[in-house]
Amino acid sequence: MSRKYKGLKDCSCYSRLVEKAESPFDLTDNSNLTSARVDSYRISSDLLSLYFATQRFDDEVLDGLQCVADECLLVEQFSEMRTGAVINRIDGFESENRQVLHTAVRDIFVNEPSAQEATNQAKAELEKLKTFLTEIEEGRVVNENNEPFTTMVQVGIGGSDLGPRAVYEALKAYQVKGRKVYFISNVDPDDAASVLKQLDLSRTLFNIVSKSGTTLETLTNQQLVRDALQAAGLDPVKHCLAVTGEGSPMDNPAEYRALFYIYDYIGGRYSTTSMVGLVALGFALGYERIIEFLKGANEFDIHAGEPDIRKNIPLLLALIGVWNHNFLHYPTLAVLPYSQSLHRFTAHLQQCDMESNGKSVSRQGESLELKSGPVIWGEPGTNGQHAFYQLLHQGTEIVPAEFIGFLESQYDQDIEVEGTSSQQKLVANLLAQVVALAVGRDSENLNKRFPGNRPSLLLIAKKLTPKVMGALLACYEAKIVFQGFIWDINSFDQEGVQLGKVLADKFLQEMAEDGSGSAGWESRLLERVISA
Amino acid sequence: MSRKYKGLKDCSCYSRLVEKAESPFDLTDNSNLTSARVDSYRISSDLLSLYFATQRFDDEVLDGLQCVADECLLVEQFSEMRTGAVINRIDGFESENRQVLHTAVRDIFVNEPSAQEATNQAKAELEKLKTFLTEIEEGRVVNENNEPFTTMVQVGIGGSDLGPRAVYEALKAYQVKGRKVYFISNVDPDDAASVLKQLDLSRTLFNIVSKSGTTLETLTNQQLVRDALQAAGLDPVKHCLAVTGEGSPMDNPAEYRALFYIYDYIGGRYSTTSMVGLVALGFALGYERIIEFLKGANEFDIHAGEPDIRKNIPLLLALIGVWNHNFLHYPTLAVLPYSQSLHRFTAHLQQCDMESNGKSVSRQGESLELKSGPVIWGEPGTNGQHAFYQLLHQGTEIVPAEFIGFLESQYDQDIEVEGTSSQQKLVANLLAQVVALAVGRDSENLNKRFPGNRPSLLLIAKKLTPKVMGALLACYEAKIVFQGFIWDINSFDQEGVQLGKVLADKFLQEMAEDGSGSAGWESRLLERVISA
Repeated sequence: MSRKYKGLKDCSCYSRLVEKAESPFDLTDNSNLTSARVDSYRISSDLLSLYFATQRFDDEVLDGLQCVADECLLVEQFSEMRTGAVINRIDGFESENRQVLHTAVRDIFVNEPSAQEATNQAKAELEKLKTFLTEIEEGRVVNENNEPFTTMVQVGIGGSDLGPRAVYEALKAYQVKGRKVYFISNVDPDDAASVLKQLDLSRTLFNIVSKSGTTLETLTNQQLVRDALQAAGLDPVKHCLAVTGEGSPMDNPAEYRALFYIYDYIGGRYSTTSMVGLVALGFALGYERIIEFLKGANEFDIHAGEPDIRKNIPLLLALIGVWNHNFLHYPTLAVLPYSQSLHRFTAHLQQCDMESNGKSVSRQGESLELKSGPVIWGEPGTNGQHAFYQLLHQGTEIVPAEFIGFLESQYDQDIEVEGTSSQQKLVANLLAQVVALAVGRDSENLNKRFPGNRPSLLLIAKKLTPKVMGALLACYEAKIVFQGFIWDINSFDQEGVQLGKVLADKFLQEMAEDGSGSAGWESRLLERVISA
Repeated sequence: MSRKYKGLKDCSCYSRLVEKAESPFDLTDNSNLTSARVDSYRISSDLLSLYFATQRFDDEVLDGLQCVADECLLVEQFSEMRTGAVINRIDGFESENRQVLHTAVRDIFVNEPSAQEATNQAKAELEKLKTFLTEIEEGRVVNENNEPFTTMVQVGIGGSDLGPRAVYEALKAYQVKGRKVYFISNVDPDDAASVLKQLDLSRTLFNIVSKSGTTLETLTNQQLVRDALQAAGLDPVKHCLAVTGEGSPMDNPAEYRALFYIYDYIGGRYSTTSMVGLVALGFALGYERIIEFLKGANEFDIHAGEPDIRKNIPLLLALIGVWNHNFLHYPTLAVLPYSQSLHRFTAHLQQCDMESNGKSVSRQGESLELKSGPVIWGEPGTNGQHAFYQLLHQGTEIVPAEFIGFLESQYDQDIEVEGTSSQQKLVANLLAQVVALAVGRDSENLNKRFPGNRPSLLLIAKKLTPKVMGALLACYEAKIVFQGFIWDINSFDQEGVQLGKVLADKFLQEMAEDGSGSAGWESRLLERVISA
């Protein structure tokens, strides 16, 4: 089958890059990691800056990566995506055949958006949301006793949970006084029980989020929530909102106090800037702050259109990832935010990245020759320093790291101890890790030796505001999309989740028929299904 | 330097295992994964059962792994550890030279514990804690207004945070009514600010935890907390407790309402069952439940002394890990609990495992020939199914998985939808993933093809009680220790965190001298320190 676009391996520079990877740039050599290199190996934008001097490459590799970007037409494909090309597909095989337009929902600030219709739909939903939030604020949307709602619980899983939750946690410092958001996601009944236990149900809105309106976990938890409301003498319809696809089984105004739509051109894991994220974020932060959030995302969608990899942060992030994964053969990537409020951001990226690019088949339905996405993992620093950094510095696995930091705190409640603030200590630790991983340190006691040459990079911003959060989210989304183009895969489907669903149904049938709970039950079940 | 014990590579069965790994057991062949195999490839104990039929090995490999266990004297070394051998050391080099006696603090149920003195010290601290908890309960430890304390905030990082937090989250369902525990760990000032914001300081006890009494993050956060108490007109001494080493800078009764000791033979990452974890857990759960928790841990310490790998869960877990990492060359391990309350357990394991075994040097101070610890990562299911499982099933990276599940929920607030409960749905999904990863599914549409042969195992218990949590914690601790013995490394030091500390201090000096915040500040700093 003929390829529409070149993949990495077809690039004219591929074999030269393979050669260069045999003796990558040595960061432990003092004459190499100069201040001139630090100064020139960086990209600054209004919202984020990228420092990448501590990667194992030189200008020739960068030129090679530029050639990959050019020959694979990465920026052109990104632009096609933004204008509504049907890129969620596998040529010649049954596939979702959809547009990919998560960028359209934040393309609301320009007169001529790239995908006019999708942006208009986004604007219409935003207007509905604005009205709804105003009605809450002005006391027109209230509970049975005419009291205001103080709490929203988002009931959703996967993309309807991870992105919205990560952003909510990141921006809690900006929360409207007296408001709070909780999340219920897992089909584990203890998830809902432990959340519901903490709430005054009479003051709580439940936002049920499922694009298809058929997600097992979400429908089950919705039932659980409605039962709890009823048991408390409350009317579930008055307390439930929905975000779903038009025409889905959940698209029923009789069941919900308000309904917001998400369209099939937005994948779950790219849906945080759609109604999937904005309803709860709008409730928590207020309308103006979610517009700031969208603005930051939109600025980075535009930034991602820059063809020069030395000026395009997500594009270079994508190519650095490919250099480390496909050429230096590092199997994982640690994302390490030095901000406690980003403590769920890596979990969001695990979905956004690994569900997008954990694939083995090209856009032509053929087996891949090269590796696609790495394992993404990480926890915030400085906490991680006291946990797994031992392995990062001295382990036998080499883990490229992406550090994310901020110069200012969010709450501005800091303290000076021994001449520096906590925020300075946080940043000092962050910079120290970047340097330590790169340069290492020799010692005659091998146990105190640091080999160095462990690549990392630094994304840094002034402060984690709603706008910067939007930029960060869109930056990683664009990075992931660019990598999908490089590997020539469809980053927008998720066929790999199907088999588990089929088998789970089979187990559930057995359970429903036979009852359960007697000794040896799980083993009998496992045996029966395996041998079936 | 001569080795005291054989490492993996010196075992007589090593080369045969290498051969066997060239064509590992095929799980996709229907005639292979039989119910007889499921039945015989399991270990049941009173508290936990292990199913391992879905690993890529046969009886000959198991015999080889038994030979590794025997020749490396794994169980003997474990027993030496428990009786107080100085195994935290590197022969012939400067090292910590300490005993490793985290098992002693739960060896309180037998008449003749393996390490009498350490167990006596643990008993003395437990008595102090029991008295303190009783005084709280009986209204003798109260605040300035004679009101009871409702909240405890644990201030600690690394082992003083991750393990206690993971166990607290796991056992929240058993919390004493009206009590709550929070954690402050990160030097990021927003961590403390976001926690303090939620509290009634007058009803809060702060438990400051640092073995050395010198941890930067913890001392800084202690200062922040004391300032906040003072600003609220409260006496910090009345609201602060400490857990620290005897004679440490924090060992000052004038500064704390109560002081509990931890001894240097307990490493931070193994300290959850010491006062480091028990003070906050005791406050949250009550004294009897923490004794149950210790009992579960103790039972697994004893279980881990069984020499037959087909009867010893942590020992077999260790060897399965080595098979997957050293013979099949999988670089990571996913730990996937199907219980939302275990949502921080993998983060605890990241420290306990990766800080212990992320090493490159043998116990004789020589470079390792084989790989040591893998990258550990994971999130709870079913959430993960909607996140990164795409990569587990169809990605180009193969990730061995350890599933953890329970037959019953904790809160017992379940709901039946379509003939099955949520808990049954949770378990059905768990079993389905084990089977799907192993057997795969063929398809002419390669995008819908599941290659299978992705190894996993299942740890299952009836219900996540305090006792089972103790067992699970001790099971993983023992697994990690066994792996350290196999790789012939010192699993109890953490030299790899030192360089970052040194460089952070250097950055902080620069900051204290020069002020900061002006444009380009972070870049100037990075340049200056790199070029220094």
